[in-house]
Amino acid sequence: MKIVVDAMGGDYAPEVPVQGAVDALKDNQEISIILVGKTEEIKAQLEKYEYDQSRIEIVHAEEVIGFDEPPVMAIRKKKNSSIVVGMNLVKKGEADAFVSAGSTGAILVGGQVIVGRIKGVERAPLAPLIPTAKGPALLIDCGANVDARSSHLVQFAKMGSIYMERVVGVEKPRVAIVNIGAEEEKGNQLVKETYPLLKECKDIHFVGSIEARDIPKGDADVIVCEAFVGNVILKLYEGLSSTLISKIKQGLMSTLRSKIGALLIKPALKNTMKDFQTDEHGGAPLLGLKGLVVKTHGSSNAHDIKMGILQCVQFTREKINDQIKENLTVE
Amino acid sequence: MKIVVDAMGGDYAPEVPVQGAVDALKDNQEISIILVGKTEEIKAQLEKYEYDQSRIEIVHAEEVIGFDEPPVMAIRKKKNSSIVVGMNLVKKGEADAFVSAGSTGAILVGGQVIVGRIKGVERAPLAPLIPTAKGPALLIDCGANVDARSSHLVQFAKMGSIYMERVVGVEKPRVAIVNIGAEEEKGNQLVKETYPLLKECKDIHFVGSIEARDIPKGDADVIVCEAFVGNVILKLYEGLSSTLISKIKQGLMSTLRSKIGALLIKPALKNTMKDFQTDEHGGAPLLGLKGLVVKTHGSSNAHDIKMGILQCVQFTREKINDQIKENLTVE
Repeated sequence: MKIVVDAMGGDYAPEVPVQGAVDALKDNQEISIILVGKTEEIKAQLEKYEYDQSRIEIVHAEEVIGFDEPPVMAIRKKKNSSIVVGMNLVKKGEADAFVSAGSTGAILVGGQVIVGRIKGVERAPLAPLIPTAKGPALLIDCGANVDARSSHLVQFAKMGSIYMERVVGVEKPRVAIVNIGAEEEKGNQLVKETYPLLKECKDIHFVGSIEARDIPKGDADVIVCEAFVGNVILKLYEGLSSTLISKIKQGLMSTLRSKIGALLIKPALKNTMKDFQTDEHGGAPLLGLKGLVVKTHGSSNAHDIKMGILQCVQFTREKINDQIKENLTVE
Repeated sequence: MKIVVDAMGGDYAPEVPVQGAVDALKDNQEISIILVGKTEEIKAQLEKYEYDQSRIEIVHAEEVIGFDEPPVMAIRKKKNSSIVVGMNLVKKGEADAFVSAGSTGAILVGGQVIVGRIKGVERAPLAPLIPTAKGPALLIDCGANVDARSSHLVQFAKMGSIYMERVVGVEKPRVAIVNIGAEEEKGNQLVKETYPLLKECKDIHFVGSIEARDIPKGDADVIVCEAFVGNVILKLYEGLSSTLISKIKQGLMSTLRSKIGALLIKPALKNTMKDFQTDEHGGAPLLGLKGLVVKTHGSSNAHDIKMGILQCVQFTREKINDQIKENLTVE
């Protein structure tokens, strides 16, 4: 199994992607890794570690796509960027998967344009795992293609179910559609059109509508919505958690008494909050492509990159793409 | 100034609405209150308190609209319900405002059908105040009418600005549209159509797009979105805060050490978290109607009801509806 890692992607490149790759090699004996990016910089990082040299290869890419570059233009113009070079390796079948902490927009565009969609897949959704009180749930779609149609959402539900069952290991994952009320007749035009289609779908376990309030409780495993709504949910999750936690920290530091208390609660709190962190769950897969593309957070640390890589192993081993092909072309 | 309070609305009716009304009377000498609902039950509650009897009146309403009744049907059929009777008092000009913790759906429908929209107002949005790190922000629209047009969103921005400036007291409120990126060209069809219209708008202080991640930080005072997205934001706010806080409590109770720490931090934490609570800010106004309708949370306590009532005073005193009329009919 061969996995390409974008050595130039993310806030802490190339240090962090290289370290994540080395760590992943140690954790899993089945894989080998291609680091794509500026050879000299990658070599300088690799020198810090001891690792099995036969399992790491460097493929040179002179350019880097920045976070603020318009994605379509960047993918078209920067043929020698780590993202384009890396994705081409997957396209040509020289690697199974591509992992990057780089520009989300460029990864989304590159995935569609370079790697390409599986025949029959209308749209390739970006599907991050978000933390809930009952473990991670898949939020599908959080990509950049908004104004989806109901047929897209049905495909998201199917692909998401396969992913949660086979990669994350959730048996009979509960699929729900994001809505503003629990009743079938509620919702906007898109939800009203999609609901009956999901209800009829035999190969998923559809549990109905989910209100945003119940997402953190863990009332569904696959949370289906169009990308605008998915983006709002994902980003509010990030923003609200960090604002609340900084409010709490501020409260803890406000008096001497509370400062002493803070020292006492720290270890216990750290343990509980860990369950509620996103980075334990690796990156977000871009589903429905001819190869696997995984996007990790721009601020990923080495652990996140490693988790993103290991996620690809399970994905490839379980032949998720063959299953997607089978399931989506039945109709 | 006369304010109608729905004595039968909310999870703790009639006890809590009656107590909230009595408390509001004590806090503000300008107002008198009409309690609408089952006379005998209201009287039994009123007996508990001492208050200026000349400023409270009871108007009998035999029926109650439940939380799970289909709203349109309920408003049409239950002519003697507290919501319908109360709203009719506003419609006939016998009162300035109506406050209820009852069924959101019924209040939204009743507001449009009974009280009616101001001429020129295309849609009456429900606009709750949500907590942010920099104080409350108005989230407009969180109502039940989804699939909005860009002209609706422009009116929301104008009405929201007037409300934040005159009722909440925010000078030159910053208006932003919820989007999935900061750039003008980003967004779904609706946002792309609305953005340039808001930019041209002279009577608001438009600051551009806001990503959901930045809402809790307090980057805008008036947050414009269509009702589906508004509902998702509002309910995720509620759900995520409560899940996070219960996770934290669970962590605090997990060891003896952390239990002792919890006792020490409690007072300080309570104070800081207070800034981040919704109930300090009263209820959500339904804007653009010929009278004021305020919806408070179904689980409102007496303090919430009182705040909802006092909010009406400021609204009426500042002649918000005259300003809305002026501003929306200029075009």
